[in-house]
Amino acid sequence: MTRERLFLFDTTLRDGQQTSGVTFSIEDKIRIARALDALGVDYVEGGWPGANPTDSDFFQRAPGLSRATFTAFGMTKRVGRSAENDEVLAGVTNAATPAVCLVGKTHDYQVETALGVTLEENRDAIRDSVRHLGRLSREPLFDAEHFFDGYKANPDYALSCLEAAMEGGARWVVLCDTNGGTLPAEIGEIVSQVVKRIPGANLGIHTHDDTGMAVAGSLAAVDAGARQIQGTLNGLGERCGNANLTSLIPTLLLKKPYADAYEVGVKREDLPKLTRVSRMLDDILNRTPNRHAPYVGEAAFTHKAGLHASAILKDPSTYEHVPPEVVGNERVVPMSNQAGQSNLRQRLLEMGLQVEKGDPRLGRILEEVKAREDAGYAYDGAQASFELLARRELGLLPRFFDVERYRVMVEKRINARGDAITVSEAVVVCVVDGERIMSVSESRDLATDDDRGPVNALSRALAKDLGRYQGFIEDLRLVDFKVRITSGGTEAVTRVHIDSTDGQGRRWSTVGVSPNIVDASFQALLDAIQWKLIRDGAKGQGAGAAA
Amino acid sequence: MTRERLFLFDTTLRDGQQTSGVTFSIEDKIRIARALDALGVDYVEGGWPGANPTDSDFFQRAPGLSRATFTAFGMTKRVGRSAENDEVLAGVTNAATPAVCLVGKTHDYQVETALGVTLEENRDAIRDSVRHLGRLSREPLFDAEHFFDGYKANPDYALSCLEAAMEGGARWVVLCDTNGGTLPAEIGEIVSQVVKRIPGANLGIHTHDDTGMAVAGSLAAVDAGARQIQGTLNGLGERCGNANLTSLIPTLLLKKPYADAYEVGVKREDLPKLTRVSRMLDDILNRTPNRHAPYVGEAAFTHKAGLHASAILKDPSTYEHVPPEVVGNERVVPMSNQAGQSNLRQRLLEMGLQVEKGDPRLGRILEEVKAREDAGYAYDGAQASFELLARRELGLLPRFFDVERYRVMVEKRINARGDAITVSEAVVVCVVDGERIMSVSESRDLATDDDRGPVNALSRALAKDLGRYQGFIEDLRLVDFKVRITSGGTEAVTRVHIDSTDGQGRRWSTVGVSPNIVDASFQALLDAIQWKLIRDGAKGQGAGAAA
Repeated sequence: MTRERLFLFDTTLRDGQQTSGVTFSIEDKIRIARALDALGVDYVEGGWPGANPTDSDFFQRAPGLSRATFTAFGMTKRVGRSAENDEVLAGVTNAATPAVCLVGKTHDYQVETALGVTLEENRDAIRDSVRHLGRLSREPLFDAEHFFDGYKANPDYALSCLEAAMEGGARWVVLCDTNGGTLPAEIGEIVSQVVKRIPGANLGIHTHDDTGMAVAGSLAAVDAGARQIQGTLNGLGERCGNANLTSLIPTLLLKKPYADAYEVGVKREDLPKLTRVSRMLDDILNRTPNRHAPYVGEAAFTHKAGLHASAILKDPSTYEHVPPEVVGNERVVPMSNQAGQSNLRQRLLEMGLQVEKGDPRLGRILEEVKAREDAGYAYDGAQASFELLARRELGLLPRFFDVERYRVMVEKRINARGDAITVSEAVVVCVVDGERIMSVSESRDLATDDDRGPVNALSRALAKDLGRYQGFIEDLRLVDFKVRITSGGTEAVTRVHIDSTDGQGRRWSTVGVSPNIVDASFQALLDAIQWKLIRDGAKGQGAGAAA
Repeated sequence: MTRERLFLFDTTLRDGQQTSGVTFSIEDKIRIARALDALGVDYVEGGWPGANPTDSDFFQRAPGLSRATFTAFGMTKRVGRSAENDEVLAGVTNAATPAVCLVGKTHDYQVETALGVTLEENRDAIRDSVRHLGRLSREPLFDAEHFFDGYKANPDYALSCLEAAMEGGARWVVLCDTNGGTLPAEIGEIVSQVVKRIPGANLGIHTHDDTGMAVAGSLAAVDAGARQIQGTLNGLGERCGNANLTSLIPTLLLKKPYADAYEVGVKREDLPKLTRVSRMLDDILNRTPNRHAPYVGEAAFTHKAGLHASAILKDPSTYEHVPPEVVGNERVVPMSNQAGQSNLRQRLLEMGLQVEKGDPRLGRILEEVKAREDAGYAYDGAQASFELLARRELGLLPRFFDVERYRVMVEKRINARGDAITVSEAVVVCVVDGERIMSVSESRDLATDDDRGPVNALSRALAKDLGRYQGFIEDLRLVDFKVRITSGGTEAVTRVHIDSTDGQGRRWSTVGVSPNIVDASFQALLDAIQWKLIRDGAKGQGAGAAA
């Protein structure tokens, strides 16, 4: 049976950025675009070139996608000037992307009151703008803003706007439920009517989650004939978010009737990447991932101990509608760590640590991870700390040095010239090969360091003199630092993630947890140094492993 | 037009408690049950009496509901004993609730493999158990576990189980999609078939959110003839959660066709309680509320500055499908460097600051916001700091006190007993009414404070003695603390958001930015105190405003 092609259009970098508090850096955008490309999404909308400096720069440094069509977003030309002479539109086309998606109004009321132009002028603007894209050899897409409200108010006008876009050569006309208020059944009904009245249109659907049904609304549109779905990773987006591609993708690939009827750019073999991609986005946004997210949430396959947990071992389908591994997630059954051990061996292997099946140390590592996670640690984003933990249990962690004590001070005061200055000073006392080494370092707000706080002062005091290890750590740099308040047992604790790099281009992440932010940072710093010493083959003190 | 009655059945206290990590105390259950009752939910399922001591005690201390039917949950009797002699069932009926909901299997495979009984024995157990409830004058409900999977495998058997429950006198038979894998269209189709084959059945629907469509699945069942919806507040529940009543209720009351077709126990005038009830549950669970939750999320009516924010002021329906106040929520138009003067005036008005159109101070406030956002500040999530900024420009910020200097120290060392201890000590020197006040405070990791780091020490040193302002700040608590490394101009800076509360139940957010995390935290702390002093009407020093 031939399956029809269904296209996925990701707008995490554009509509997702409309979320209050969300601002992506260029590096963030590049990472996300590449992950979407690797996943198999068909279109990656990067932003609105010309609307702000970051978006403009991002398009200049095009992320180099291999499968996905890189797409710029913009608005149809203004009435009263030609498409060629509209500098806002020029800003968009200058980005030179293979595809351009232009939004335009299709709700008569909006056209007349918000734009203040005639219905005909608006329709002409849509047609001319889309045609202009074609002349520049761009694949043109048209986002019909407020389409469902417009259709309910004046179906003929709303449809005529779609037709104008098609006359202009639009490859896709996308029906947007901009305020998120249309329920799935009504979306399905209206899409059916559009299909009937404009046969041959390539329809897309763009929904928002204001009633908690953006995913269902997208599927209702597909059922009625839409063949492109616009959405975002993790449902990121203004207000309640956009249609969640992270939920839609597995449903389309794994569930009837979609799996049988449609071919999607994302392949079954790409699907296990999904959980990682979802977590990466939260990591970039420094958000706690939604534990209960469909398919990819940490709790999506977690079974509370008791009846369910024992039933799940006999027959997983009782409480799991799909196997967790197909989306790259894991089952968590508090009673058993059977599944845990084989995952763990795989992870250790990726770090170059080969451990035999059934080795009792595997169970001890899992127990230690669980105990630490209960205490607030999170190893998902801290592979280097995880490796150190595993090495400790395996007896493969050399003892390099001990820290006897440290002290860090931050002071703000008025200096002799009358300026308010802040100074951080750190003292660290280490013991290497039986020798005490005392180092002091300061960080001042008149200095040019990236981070001029207590953690940087500590990091520099630590790195200042580590005796015979000094040579190994001279190129180590602290490049990112994230802090979250979380719960450790019954208490609130501070979790610090630190990213480090070295002169060989490695980048690694470590974690520390403590009720005290400085102490948590110090743990993560120590882990960062130890991981680097291991990678560079530094020899420990004596032959033994650390306790 | 007569509207048909649609019933809401809440299982937050039973199925919601299946969430890993969730355990309600008796007091929690009483608070939640009463809130559900006040909201107008028809059934409140309190738990499984006999299954654990808390549930048993909770039923003994029945919460005294005025409108809702208090319901106990249990399992149909075991095969091989009579309903009268099943002590598990007796545990349930002893709770003496007006209604009892019993779960039973309807999937032939489950009956034969998991229960290990014949299909007929299982069906008889359902009939007898339900009949037993009726004899005890309880309203009997039957939850058909795995119904949709059972129906797909063996429709005749699954239906015969429903019929057995009805023969026993079940007031409701509830179709459960236990593993959450059935899509809304299929739920609708199967419910239609059940309606056709068992006319006169009172059908309920119980869905899970494993594909992100529990709400849509519930509505599909209603469209097909179900007249009871089972769900939980905030969609609490195992794995991805249950159908979210907090999303369903406003849709049923506010949206066509439901609002016209059905009468629900929750009335329009009860609906503004919804946001508060939702936040109360998170508060009890000590969870951060989902900002993006439909209707009740903090961001559900938040409009990022720019095109949308100005459109919303002209016509709210452009980006709001319902008015926020009908669900007890509010519109937020956050400040940002794209915001215009009209947004700003609106925002100031909400803070009680009336400024005339065209006032030149409006432009100065926007410039200051822009300059600070460029330096790394983010006012989206820090309304209190934004208010202080605006007041400063408007000359409406009293000068309460000055900070001359502070110093904070963190030390980790081995104490006399050989334990590693971490101590934070802070010294703050303030000037109030010309008088220097020096305060010192410490935070130790053996103490019981929530946060035992330098920020807490600083906060406590600041709060220790503020002279005549002391009375105003005694009930101030630091409740959340978020840190992000961001870029300020060309350099990396640390941005700290702090949430504070006071004894009057206020919660407010402030922001600080500095290359030094301690300094950024200190700024946010100072803002938190100043905002509180303003709200409580504290008088500044002299008459002037601070520079």
